[in-house]
Amino acid sequence: MSDYVRNLWYMAAWENEVPDHGVLARRLLDAPWAIYRLGDGSYAMLADRCPHRFVPLSRGKRVGDMLQCGYHGLGFGADGRCAHTPFATAVPDAQVATRPIVARHGALWFWPGDAALADPALIPDFSFVTDGAEVVCESLLMDAGYQFITDNLMDLSHAEFLHVETFGVNGSLFGGKHSVETDDTGGIWNKWDMVDAKAPEWAKPMLPPGTNTDQKMHIRWHAPASMALFIELTRDDTGQPLVPPMANPHIITPATATTSHYFYTREPGDAAKAMALKVFLEEDEPMIQAAEAGLDGQEFWAARPLILASDAGAVRVRRRLMQLRKREAAEPALQPA
Amino acid sequence: MSDYVRNLWYMAAWENEVPDHGVLARRLLDAPWAIYRLGDGSYAMLADRCPHRFVPLSRGKRVGDMLQCGYHGLGFGADGRCAHTPFATAVPDAQVATRPIVARHGALWFWPGDAALADPALIPDFSFVTDGAEVVCESLLMDAGYQFITDNLMDLSHAEFLHVETFGVNGSLFGGKHSVETDDTGGIWNKWDMVDAKAPEWAKPMLPPGTNTDQKMHIRWHAPASMALFIELTRDDTGQPLVPPMANPHIITPATATTSHYFYTREPGDAAKAMALKVFLEEDEPMIQAAEAGLDGQEFWAARPLILASDAGAVRVRRRLMQLRKREAAEPALQPA
Amino acid sequence: MSDYVRNLWYMAAWENEVPDHGVLARRLLDAPWAIYRLGDGSYAMLADRCPHRFVPLSRGKRVGDMLQCGYHGLGFGADGRCAHTPFATAVPDAQVATRPIVARHGALWFWPGDAALADPALIPDFSFVTDGAEVVCESLLMDAGYQFITDNLMDLSHAEFLHVETFGVNGSLFGGKHSVETDDTGGIWNKWDMVDAKAPEWAKPMLPPGTNTDQKMHIRWHAPASMALFIELTRDDTGQPLVPPMANPHIITPATATTSHYFYTREPGDAAKAMALKVFLEEDEPMIQAAEAGLDGQEFWAARPLILASDAGAVRVRRRLMQLRKREAAEPALQPA
Repeated sequence: MSDYVRNLWYMAAWENEVPDHGVLARRLLDAPWAIYRLGDGSYAMLADRCPHRFVPLSRGKRVGDMLQCGYHGLGFGADGRCAHTPFATAVPDAQVATRPIVARHGALWFWPGDAALADPALIPDFSFVTDGAEVVCESLLMDAGYQFITDNLMDLSHAEFLHVETFGVNGSLFGGKHSVETDDTGGIWNKWDMVDAKAPEWAKPMLPPGTNTDQKMHIRWHAPASMALFIELTRDDTGQPLVPPMANPHIITPATATTSHYFYTREPGDAAKAMALKVFLEEDEPMIQAAEAGLDGQEFWAARPLILASDAGAVRVRRRLMQLRKREAAEPALQPA
Repeated sequence: MSDYVRNLWYMAAWENEVPDHGVLARRLLDAPWAIYRLGDGSYAMLADRCPHRFVPLSRGKRVGDMLQCGYHGLGFGADGRCAHTPFATAVPDAQVATRPIVARHGALWFWPGDAALADPALIPDFSFVTDGAEVVCESLLMDAGYQFITDNLMDLSHAEFLHVETFGVNGSLFGGKHSVETDDTGGIWNKWDMVDAKAPEWAKPMLPPGTNTDQKMHIRWHAPASMALFIELTRDDTGQPLVPPMANPHIITPATATTSHYFYTREPGDAAKAMALKVFLEEDEPMIQAAEAGLDGQEFWAARPLILASDAGAVRVRRRLMQLRKREAAEPALQPA
Repeated sequence: MSDYVRNLWYMAAWENEVPDHGVLARRLLDAPWAIYRLGDGSYAMLADRCPHRFVPLSRGKRVGDMLQCGYHGLGFGADGRCAHTPFATAVPDAQVATRPIVARHGALWFWPGDAALADPALIPDFSFVTDGAEVVCESLLMDAGYQFITDNLMDLSHAEFLHVETFGVNGSLFGGKHSVETDDTGGIWNKWDMVDAKAPEWAKPMLPPGTNTDQKMHIRWHAPASMALFIELTRDDTGQPLVPPMANPHIITPATATTSHYFYTREPGDAAKAMALKVFLEEDEPMIQAAEAGLDGQEFWAARPLILASDAGAVRVRRRLMQLRKREAAEPALQPA
């Protein structure tokens, strides 16, 4: 069975990661891809491997909407057809694979499965990325498998141990109400709702002494690992928001089975950048890697993890993914060329 | 067949390697362990892997005699039982593995086999470590398998090539009498006895011109790789010791099949430290690694090594270890959980 | 089937790579070898692995024409026989493998197959290395398999993309005549002949304005990967050479299946050295590695490369090598001890 569900939209990149007249070379789901912007503003996604001598086309150069190989000069159009040879011979009959790729709310989404099923209406809603205050859209490559990163995010209680200082949390989560819900877009929600809870340290100056807060920490998952985190903090006495509601994408796309692109946004400025990198690379990544390494090659369920009530969201996500993978394994027609 | 004999005492650490209120995380026999000192001065040794999400407990913190996981907060006592949860739920019914661990003569010894057989009287005698002059107890991780390090030590003739300058040897060993003996503690002794031999360079100023020495270089092995080196140097004419008899532990414990903890002592001071590291890391380690690499994956005996008379001690040790491993392979009841 | 044809002369080193009173340790065809110059000026090639404890003999020292192991002191002569022991015992009956090795035109050639077949007359002709102007003989270790380096050299059209700036090429090759020939020494020639072609940029100052050139770029291959490149540039109007004909060795010997010794010559001087390293390590090597990596472990033909007319030479070489390997696989008697 494949490590990946194929018939889904995966995020390939932020639009701003594609250089203006160049090519973004990126490994996605274990294969190399070349992504570039066409003259008309749309995007092309070609298998990044020349069929002649197998080198990445992205090592060559753009010639209009064509990619020309940097080894012996064959050129390929946005449709993957060979369209140019430097030799005094006919253009060879050759083709590289392509994938549907769509820009939506600052992100590029591709469909690694049967192209006929690639309906853009199925892209999960991340409109908050472009509809709210200005944010910086960035990504990093995390040396961890996407399911372990998902486990981390779908159990927000980890913040009470890993992010105590960076987030200023104070244990209020453990007094909250935990629930798991699904919605009709295929989303799975893991929710913590805290009523009359001690405010985080950074919020105290914004409150009269002794005033508590109501807090919501809700995270939404769509297959395979496209998550959105929603946080609200209101005064317990007046019900007024202390800060505007926060929404953050945490969108994970496998580079390989054990490395993942982590797409996120942050506020502008160097301090916010440093904070994001500290949280992701110094606090989260080493622990996520430790969780994966702790299996020592065993399959997750075969290792018989101790399941806590707080794992309900993460467990439901792992089961959903397993169902999707099994369903595709039973339908080879869904696999692309 | 396992790479390791299980029903033996292995050295886990020097006592001084365990931080006062912290945890020593160490890989021993291919598994991660957390070792810490309890309030009553005794020691605990827990499998360093939380049963919830499999991360090392040593990444968390000590809370009294309990280890609390740094990912989601479960706590485990010295007996390995789960004793704490931060959530508003019952403490889960969970257990991590433990091993018997005993302090003796500055070292901690653990028993990876059947705990019912762990008799401290079987720990080999290294009382000279704490009974003699003050020494510094240290360890290093050598990137070589424990049997190859043992081969190196059980054939002291290597000093005549690898340690000529550091030890001031001068070939006198080749004129000595070589013998191999066993004792009733399971020890195997490889002995070189040199009579009327040229003194080493460093000892000449302590002797009248033309005076020779009698020398003993005896090394004692106990399974799996706990060795003690005894050296004596006396005036050939008077029989008086030139220097006090020397005794040094060379205790090797596998971290993995190809990496080993090397426990040693040295005299205090920076010069002695530099000398020890030069001998172990610049002289011994590269050659031991070369011996292992030279097999290119072949089993040692399958490679049909040329056997010299001087190999008698090393060969007897390899055979003894093979017998012990075969015996355990035939008795699965001896394996721990 | 072996990765290597055994009954062939392979280049082991330039003579100047063998230190005067020392030993050249080099991995060749997946095995470690010790090469040194004897008192009479001829050469010895011994398996670089002591039969006692398997460490490289090259870690020891030369004692006349003998190599003495640096671990426990056994000595071996140029014929591979054990000839010395430091112990008070008989010299052991032991032998390390040797290979025929012959100096020819500044290079050392060895025969990894049946020594009885090692006829020096079969060494390909590289007399131009020592018969022409003074050159510097050097080698580098390229992290690529020898067949991929051969592919690169046997299709010189790559220069029009990889070496445009370093070689000053201008596309004239694409207007040339391409042919592939064999000769009666087992050589395969890939030839590009350009008539009335635009001169390269660097040659223009040597020509009256508007004068074109005739160009020859011929590369000759002998199994396994010993290549010679011949370049001629003449005035189209007078037929006079613009520069003396150039001849360059590109001799490739596998260190392992995926790493190769690349033997080349260059003009004296720092600029020529920098240019050579730029061409080999910055322009060629990354692309050759990309071609190998692009197979992702697949066998070359199984990956069904697109074949262009310009590949004719490279394809013929791959087929010849395959025939040679198949022939040897069918004749185990040709394998050495």
